[in-house]
Amino acid sequence: MISKSQISFIKSLQQKKIRKEHGLFVVEGLKSVSEFIHSHYTVDTIYYIENVMPKLGNLSHNIKPIEISISELTKISALSSPQQILALVKIPEHRTLTTQMLKGCFTIALDGIQDPGNLGTIIRTADWFGIKYLVCSGDTVDAYNSKVVQATMGSLSRVHVSYTNLDKFLEQADVPVFGALLEGNSIYKTEFGSEGILILGNEGNGIRSEISRRIQFPVTIPRFGEAESLNVAVSASIFCSEMRRNS
Amino acid sequence: MISKSQISFIKSLQQKKIRKEHGLFVVEGLKSVSEFIHSHYTVDTIYYIENVMPKLGNLSHNIKPIEISISELTKISALSSPQQILALVKIPEHRTLTTQMLKGCFTIALDGIQDPGNLGTIIRTADWFGIKYLVCSGDTVDAYNSKVVQATMGSLSRVHVSYTNLDKFLEQADVPVFGALLEGNSIYKTEFGSEGILILGNEGNGIRSEISRRIQFPVTIPRFGEAESLNVAVSASIFCSEMRRNS
Repeated sequence: MISKSQISFIKSLQQKKIRKEHGLFVVEGLKSVSEFIHSHYTVDTIYYIENVMPKLGNLSHNIKPIEISISELTKISALSSPQQILALVKIPEHRTLTTQMLKGCFTIALDGIQDPGNLGTIIRTADWFGIKYLVCSGDTVDAYNSKVVQATMGSLSRVHVSYTNLDKFLEQADVPVFGALLEGNSIYKTEFGSEGILILGNEGNGIRSEISRRIQFPVTIPRFGEAESLNVAVSASIFCSEMRRNS
Repeated sequence: MISKSQISFIKSLQQKKIRKEHGLFVVEGLKSVSEFIHSHYTVDTIYYIENVMPKLGNLSHNIKPIEISISELTKISALSSPQQILALVKIPEHRTLTTQMLKGCFTIALDGIQDPGNLGTIIRTADWFGIKYLVCSGDTVDAYNSKVVQATMGSLSRVHVSYTNLDKFLEQADVPVFGALLEGNSIYKTEFGSEGILILGNEGNGIRSEISRRIQFPVTIPRFGEAESLNVAVSASIFCSEMRRNS
């Protein structure tokens, strides 16, 4: 059972401002909720329909479980096909990515990514390839946006996403800085070594000039056909694979 | 100026059944419409708002141009932010992919892809990598679905997509058949040669057993982290890149 005010509160969490104010975001679906429960995140409340709870195993006593009807779930869900369970999860304290954390690994820097599906897919792909850190410009879409959370398929519980002034961040970084550009050296001839930052730019406009001046190694995915560009999540994936293929 | 019945007709083209019945589909946006005009497709009607037509150059006299208002465009558009121009384009006659067309190139076979964004992104990526043919199982989402068309960013005008009985099609193919599976040989150690078919499966269930028995070379993208799977358009992209890197 859920009150009208709870319903409208949960729906209001689709707005970034409200998420920030209350420090909460929404996770939907059994697999994703389960991964957040078993992560460093703190799950606050779980709204579930009959018979779903046993699949989650023993829950910490800090989590409030609330059984609701399917029609109530439909009201609070942001999905067109709600998935049995919805959790409110606490947004963790902002952890800045230090330059020390960049050593010995690959980090993805995103400059102004707008599409939630793209960010979510990049987070999921980073998780597959064992990339732990994403650092985003302040105008990149919020990682706690429900469409982003959904597209990560639980990977947001493992990949650390932070927002910062990318220009200043890159100025201080002392690992190689690669940039995905339309005119650069072929990705197939690039030695990525064992550490570095890969910058990917906005869907329509690419990487801003004040950010691209920080690129030490401009890299291109060669084009064999006629498409004008690649989707940014597709580019990110091909870069992740190339950075990892020799490791 | 556009009549009420035209508005409802154009909106009805969001349904596959109606598209099939009338042999028409919708393309939106200046870049995409322009690419269809300069392709083998036949553009039937263009609905445009003031000042857009000059950007398209001289049009064939077979195309009916109709100027409409922004509010009319909003009514016929499937986009949340309509893009100045919308065209009705003829669905071409079904061209079967012959086994001869498979020789000397790579072809992508899709088994039950459901998400329009995924199919659109795969078409766009195929176009980037110069892959000309996609062959899909009958239950794969329709390539003329407006979300697919949108995600291809014009690439649908160049990549040939056909629907068939995949099992029979693969039985007759005489090029190597690769399959993207979770358990196969590493993609980094696979020699793709210069021709072949790559099979990719449904988002949730992968490749059906009756299709997977046709796979001669099961191939896997190695996992370095913890995500359970990769998005299918992401897998397709990494495969396209690997198939092309030595060519």
